[in-house]
Amino acid sequence: MSEKLSIAVDVMGGDYGPRITLPACINQLKKNPHLTLYLVGDQSVFGPYTETLSTALKSRLHIVPTTSVVSMEDKPSFALRHRRESSMFKALELVKNNQASACVSGGNTGALMALGCHVLGRLSGIDRPAIISAIPTNKSHAYLLDLGANVNCSADQLLQFALMGSAMVSAVEGNSSPRTALLNIGIEDIKGNDQVRQAASLIQAQQQLNYVGFIEGDEVFNGRAEVVVCDGFTGNIALKSNEGLARLIAGKLKQSFNRNLYRRILGLLAQPVLKELQQQIDPGRRNGASLLGLQGIVIKSHGSASSRHFEAAIEQAILDSKLNIPARIAEKLIHQ
Amino acid sequence: MSEKLSIAVDVMGGDYGPRITLPACINQLKKNPHLTLYLVGDQSVFGPYTETLSTALKSRLHIVPTTSVVSMEDKPSFALRHRRESSMFKALELVKNNQASACVSGGNTGALMALGCHVLGRLSGIDRPAIISAIPTNKSHAYLLDLGANVNCSADQLLQFALMGSAMVSAVEGNSSPRTALLNIGIEDIKGNDQVRQAASLIQAQQQLNYVGFIEGDEVFNGRAEVVVCDGFTGNIALKSNEGLARLIAGKLKQSFNRNLYRRILGLLAQPVLKELQQQIDPGRRNGASLLGLQGIVIKSHGSASSRHFEAAIEQAILDSKLNIPARIAEKLIHQ
Repeated sequence: MSEKLSIAVDVMGGDYGPRITLPACINQLKKNPHLTLYLVGDQSVFGPYTETLSTALKSRLHIVPTTSVVSMEDKPSFALRHRRESSMFKALELVKNNQASACVSGGNTGALMALGCHVLGRLSGIDRPAIISAIPTNKSHAYLLDLGANVNCSADQLLQFALMGSAMVSAVEGNSSPRTALLNIGIEDIKGNDQVRQAASLIQAQQQLNYVGFIEGDEVFNGRAEVVVCDGFTGNIALKSNEGLARLIAGKLKQSFNRNLYRRILGLLAQPVLKELQQQIDPGRRNGASLLGLQGIVIKSHGSASSRHFEAAIEQAILDSKLNIPARIAEKLIHQ
Repeated sequence: MSEKLSIAVDVMGGDYGPRITLPACINQLKKNPHLTLYLVGDQSVFGPYTETLSTALKSRLHIVPTTSVVSMEDKPSFALRHRRESSMFKALELVKNNQASACVSGGNTGALMALGCHVLGRLSGIDRPAIISAIPTNKSHAYLLDLGANVNCSADQLLQFALMGSAMVSAVEGNSSPRTALLNIGIEDIKGNDQVRQAASLIQAQQQLNYVGFIEGDEVFNGRAEVVVCDGFTGNIALKSNEGLARLIAGKLKQSFNRNLYRRILGLLAQPVLKELQQQIDPGRRNGASLLGLQGIVIKSHGSASSRHFEAAIEQAILDSKLNIPARIAEKLIHQ
């Protein structure tokens, strides 16, 4: 595969739109001399960010003007019918037409899923795509899926998530047999709902998966598994809940180090330690969740991502492109 | 209500049994001169802990010998049929017979639920009991239920949880109109599964509830609601996941403060700050989750609780007894 890479970015998506996506895009163009970006969005938003760029940089930046935006309130079905001129739809089309190897959006997740399925199509053997992202553990990190694309999941779907997650982690981490677990409310066979119990049998029967059983919410951080499978309702709430707790802890630490002059000095001295912690546990640092199961690469950025975090999502798109994750998944599905 | 209080303790429950429950019981007896404890368990385990106690203390300690134990692997149905001589069953019977005002157990949650329903009975209007506990927020704390008693929950059950949680928080916090929210993967009306969407209509229709809508996982820590309702599968995984993350962060901080001599000194100086943080976010500090919806008070301690944390569970039993939580819930149910 050539080093040259093109990524399509839905610059209108996310809570802050172009204000955070465009600085991130330009930074990534500067950092990666082999990168070309398709910036998809309303014609009027680009000027302030792109006008002053060097000609060399401009040559790797293609503006794709659009006239509509998927809003956070749009139902997936509505987006499918009425948002075909949107920045999200057009960014996906660039992947479909092989102009870009991946697309990045911080927009409405449900709509991104629906438009992704419609424009790119699903991989054979996949009912519904899933969202995957890495979370820190005491060893290194684990990949959790689904993070919110699928509210209700059948046992078959959970099996598909296990296969996709395992393929992704094999590729990204160079781990040929990542330990795969099912998130549950206990580790005994009788625990959980029908879907997870049935999924356990299905996953166990797959010789190509290294299934290590049920895993509880706290154990995820112990590094007992590299792939953790759950339905999107649970996964989304667990992940966001962790983000909330991480922020709460950071806030409490700050407050505590601000209590008096002595503590403020102590806090200044402890800055490197606190920065280290922030970097290790900051969920935003790993911003950029892959939508697995599509015939193409789609990266979902957190809606409230900062510009630095949006850059991480673009980096994820670059990584997934270099590793050709959809092909790796397709291969895994053939062997099941 | 008299200040005198009797609590029944299943001393065999939990991962460590009498080794942690008995020291906790004795400490609580020493701390609370009006407290009487019924210690329910195998006759042979008490000696080392109770023999040397003063006569005054012994007079407030009743040993109830039992010959069987509910194991962590016992299915609820099995426990119902074969564990009628167990410490858990006998402790519940003491509440039923009004010898104790509450019972505390660190044993098998499913069995505690099933035996609790069987021995004490449910409150009229409650399909299934729910487990509630407090989690820290940036304002103070919020109460989350259900935390694992019910894997699948109907919209009706979620409404019942909202009523019970609201009654409990009113009593414990002296807040007559606690803000009540439904945990979901988005705040828009279209988000989530059928159960939460239907529950939203049911809860909204209740004039006596201060319903504030859907709440996402991260917002729980913002103090936007005092009562957060969810099914037991999601609640259990979110809570345990938070416990895991809190431990991970504590571990990383320790590691970071141990990197070299300078950092170790800094760590020593920062001890008060770190202790403060630990106290504020330690999930174990709030150990002792109430099983709401029964005609009697049952407190579930974390299976892996330390002796200090098991004491917190006994304190929760004392608090729930003083406030007569089941009566407060019954009152709320009449007015729905």
